[in-house]
Amino acid sequence: MYTIKELQQIVSDLFQQEQFLAEPATLYEPIDYTLSLGGKRVRPLLLLASCQLFGGNLDQAKGAALGIETFHNFTLLHDDLMDQSPIRRGRPTVYRKWSPNTAILSGDTMFSLAWRYFLRQPHPLLHAILNTFNETTIEITEGQQYDMDFESRNDVTTDEYLNMIRLKTAVLLACALKLGALYANATPFNQETVYQFGIHLGLAFQLQDDLLDAYGDVATFGKQTGTDICDNKKTYLYLQALATANEQQRQTLTQLYATKPADSQAKVAQILDIYRQLDIKQSTERLIAQEFDKALHLLDQIEASPSAKQPLFDMAQQLLHRNS
Amino acid sequence: MYTIKELQQIVSDLFQQEQFLAEPATLYEPIDYTLSLGGKRVRPLLLLASCQLFGGNLDQAKGAALGIETFHNFTLLHDDLMDQSPIRRGRPTVYRKWSPNTAILSGDTMFSLAWRYFLRQPHPLLHAILNTFNETTIEITEGQQYDMDFESRNDVTTDEYLNMIRLKTAVLLACALKLGALYANATPFNQETVYQFGIHLGLAFQLQDDLLDAYGDVATFGKQTGTDICDNKKTYLYLQALATANEQQRQTLTQLYATKPADSQAKVAQILDIYRQLDIKQSTERLIAQEFDKALHLLDQIEASPSAKQPLFDMAQQLLHRNS
Repeated sequence: MYTIKELQQIVSDLFQQEQFLAEPATLYEPIDYTLSLGGKRVRPLLLLASCQLFGGNLDQAKGAALGIETFHNFTLLHDDLMDQSPIRRGRPTVYRKWSPNTAILSGDTMFSLAWRYFLRQPHPLLHAILNTFNETTIEITEGQQYDMDFESRNDVTTDEYLNMIRLKTAVLLACALKLGALYANATPFNQETVYQFGIHLGLAFQLQDDLLDAYGDVATFGKQTGTDICDNKKTYLYLQALATANEQQRQTLTQLYATKPADSQAKVAQILDIYRQLDIKQSTERLIAQEFDKALHLLDQIEASPSAKQPLFDMAQQLLHRNS
Repeated sequence: MYTIKELQQIVSDLFQQEQFLAEPATLYEPIDYTLSLGGKRVRPLLLLASCQLFGGNLDQAKGAALGIETFHNFTLLHDDLMDQSPIRRGRPTVYRKWSPNTAILSGDTMFSLAWRYFLRQPHPLLHAILNTFNETTIEITEGQQYDMDFESRNDVTTDEYLNMIRLKTAVLLACALKLGALYANATPFNQETVYQFGIHLGLAFQLQDDLLDAYGDVATFGKQTGTDICDNKKTYLYLQALATANEQQRQTLTQLYATKPADSQAKVAQILDIYRQLDIKQSTERLIAQEFDKALHLLDQIEASPSAKQPLFDMAQQLLHRNS
């Protein structure tokens, strides 16, 4: 049984051993830049941890581990371009360092490379594995679309928001866990339960991400803080503020969210001040704790020994208590 | 044995029966717009014609037929955005009608939808089928990257150009034919020969496309003519002109290809005049005929009855003698 730290090393080695450079260099250098950069590698880690939990052979699942991370990074290239995000993991995003066209095409190639990794190793359940992966990729683009649509809508509810982050973020974590279960030939009950564990963990993870965007430290978080506010993103924080604001606060919020000033410092400060008045940090932390509890309850229900569940439990704790 | 016209009807019905609209509409309407628009549906047609040639069950290959066309249309959405092409099939391109972000994300979704179609029907050779498809998708992005790189390079050779269009266009036609062969459990020799038939047909097809861009009629061709010249695309026509030009013609060509005037009419006329002086239309038509002959020779070598080959022969003729 590998600890989470040992699994992290396995995932890190996996990526170290891969060669991402090829011809034409203009296509593959941005891919190498992205995939060599690291990041937390949460999805391959969840995939292997789940495979181990259900007694699977990790070697069989390594292609999928590489594939799901490559896919995730493809979505980041395109999302950063669509959202015009300048920084990712403390470094310039691909569309900024190269060009929008590079982000589009190198991204597309990464999607195909993800499939190459998935197809590298045959498996008796390959059809179910590929279907699970592919249906998730569709949900993720739907989530990204809702996210962009929300920017120009003024009637987004917190429920709509939670559905959006379920699609945009949670389903890929859940998919990673289910794929690990499929590689290990886990029972349908265990496949579904570990998937739902991933959904609630993912919701907690994304809400935490929103919280860090508003309250994190740029040096440890690895991207600019306050970017959601600058971009007028209807995050849970903003929607919860709207839902609990008095008339004056609501007017200030919506007026500020109708602007995109070149210097956004004052805007961010004003929004954060209203968040403070309305205890938004606290209510978001409460929701995160609720989702996290649901996740732990589902982990508890999985039919496996407590010691086998320890690495996933540790990972969940790390994800919740991260500051970056 | 279906004629090519009957196969066209089968392909047309296939797309008619599909429902492309879903939620969010902002994501799926551009997909419906693109996939309902038609086009020649060359790739699914080649796939089914090849499957029939080798005695396969067409019903088994219908998912792949939908998949390859959906994939092809995904590449058009992204290529049109990257190349800033305003018109496709006589109508505004998606990034123009909606937005660049829409072209990116609806395109990404279409790539996933292509996989959904491929995964719809199980097949004993599914792993080989998916591998063949996926490796081709990677070659196509490489081809598109070379195509874009050539714009800013002044030393592109005709050989490099032919390799680029092999990757960008020919391999997908060849892939369609090989997939049809795989669905029909054709021998490895027949799989490879029909693939090579597709490569040479594809080269002839793309060279024909370049020719039509310069000499076609906008009403029948369905897109603006002269766009390659406007975009300073190093087409076979341009590179062959450079290779045979005298010093004065070469200077005019390179100087004109260093500009992007708002009104490009004069530029296009000047380039076409040099093409005329150098018999570029004729030498391109000769190369098309050569590639077409190679294709027909390979079709001849395929181990099947002449009557079974007739639909593919007819299609090849249609592709060569089209004016749109």
